[in-house]
Amino acid sequence: MRSPHEHPNIATKIAASFARQRLLQGFGAVLEKIEPGHVSLSVDIRPEFCQQHGFAHAGLTFALGDSAAGYSALTLMGEQQEVVTSEMKIHLLAPALGETMRADGHIIRQGRRQFVVGAKVWALKDGDPPRQIAEMLGTMVPVDPS
Amino acid sequence: MRSPHEHPNIATKIAASFARQRLLQGFGAVLEKIEPGHVSLSVDIRPEFCQQHGFAHAGLTFALGDSAAGYSALTLMGEQQEVVTSEMKIHLLAPALGETMRADGHIIRQGRRQFVVGAKVWALKDGDPPRQIAEMLGTMVPVDPS
Amino acid sequence: MRSPHEHPNIATKIAASFARQRLLQGFGAVLEKIEPGHVSLSVDIRPEFCQQHGFAHAGLTFALGDSAAGYSALTLMGEQQEVVTSEMKIHLLAPALGETMRADGHIIRQGRRQFVVGAKVWALKDGDPPRQIAEMLGTMVPVDPS
Amino acid sequence: MRSPHEHPNIATKIAASFARQRLLQGFGAVLEKIEPGHVSLSVDIRPEFCQQHGFAHAGLTFALGDSAAGYSALTLMGEQQEVVTSEMKIHLLAPALGETMRADGHIIRQGRRQFVVGAKVWALKDGDPPRQIAEMLGTMVPVDPS
Repeated sequence: MRSPHEHPNIATKIAASFARQRLLQGFGAVLEKIEPGHVSLSVDIRPEFCQQHGFAHAGLTFALGDSAAGYSALTLMGEQQEVVTSEMKIHLLAPALGETMRADGHIIRQGRRQFVVGAKVWALKDGDPPRQIAEMLGTMVPVDPS
Repeated sequence: MRSPHEHPNIATKIAASFARQRLLQGFGAVLEKIEPGHVSLSVDIRPEFCQQHGFAHAGLTFALGDSAAGYSALTLMGEQQEVVTSEMKIHLLAPALGETMRADGHIIRQGRRQFVVGAKVWALKDGDPPRQIAEMLGTMVPVDPS
Repeated sequence: MRSPHEHPNIATKIAASFARQRLLQGFGAVLEKIEPGHVSLSVDIRPEFCQQHGFAHAGLTFALGDSAAGYSALTLMGEQQEVVTSEMKIHLLAPALGETMRADGHIIRQGRRQFVVGAKVWALKDGDPPRQIAEMLGTMVPVDPS
Repeated sequence: MRSPHEHPNIATKIAASFARQRLLQGFGAVLEKIEPGHVSLSVDIRPEFCQQHGFAHAGLTFALGDSAAGYSALTLMGEQQEVVTSEMKIHLLAPALGETMRADGHIIRQGRRQFVVGAKVWALKDGDPPRQIAEMLGTMVPVDPS
């Protein structure tokens, strides 16, 4: 992978992008970690995020994991490039029960035209070990400024 | 496929389930169509649903399409069964720009333990033809009441 | 989609590519149809293609469907371009039992850098209606000549 | 995960199943490793497995990875159960160039009705470090004897 030294301002770039993500902002999501090739996000699981069975909706799980994976790719893209999701698969492994949801994104293959990325999403409950609730695998595309 | 006559109250069952989907209710999503094997949902695209580039967030597109696909499967499940997403793949085909987003779910294969389902998601703008923004393909699992 | 008139020799180009596909040639696969955006392939289901349960192996189903989908995309790529599979999902819907397997590929979205494609794979048995054994959804990438 | 002690004969069971996989036997594939939750397979890359660009065909990569993932799940299924692929996604990361291809399967989530599994496929060339050529993520289903 390319050196992170090419991107001294990657944390600033991602924080600025994240601040414009109105859906995630509305959910109260926060940036937990930004490292080259790895970005983590978290969000409190509120009752208003739930589906018909009382667990957090898969749409929330997807949004958090997709964003963590996309930003992971963005850490190693060009300074002027943006990231767009091409396609993403999510396996829902367990009900999203707990106080907080955290998504850890990572890069599997860095390419010039495509990044293959993954994310693991966890439900956290005070006193319990983290429980993996989703596994994701997808493709991110770098977009040059228009 | 099984006859819908086994489910005279399927519309009532789905409407009741949908009313408990707090995330989708918060988005203002509405049930557009319920037919055996086919369910459509729609939602107005509001500024607060957008991502960093000003389009509706993929999390919204996923949530709407996943729910349309899941309810499509539920129309042909047993009267006491619930539906859970096992896994889902989404291709994002075009930016989600417009006034309204609509998701049309359908069944590809009805099984005893798994339903293979698909969904197409469209962006609608007054005066323009609908534009497909996502194609989805996944697996739904029937869950017996506990 | 672009006009097929840009590719008067697309059938020749695909036949030549197909003739160099040694794995598919070894299986005895044949080109059934080449139309803009649609390519069909078929193969006789021989005992030596089977897996441990006596059905055709998913590797054969995948190879046939992936190639049909890829060539579908190639019909609308540039005359000098080649096609490479980026990623592909396959749902195995029913056991591959019968005399012949046929894969019908199609384009869902034509882009400059990516084609989203699908394929349906069928098992054919004399006297029976075709039975769908697989549904596929994936991404093809055009590659310029080096 | 369940104890492997419940399956003292799991290696025997998998070897017997593998011996009936005529497609993989025809390819000359061999069982490299059988441990609870982990199975590895390998195959020599022969010219007759190649596609139109001279690399091993994605159908071979898929067949090897799918089988490694399926047998990984089978190591933790019931003694009388068989395994069937429900769906599988494959990302092709790099051309399959080298002398040997190896697939390492693993379990991500063990369930009663479904196993979520992954596989990494590598191209090996004497003197070079292994090169990952594919990442796979899918669903395996246990099947009771009829």
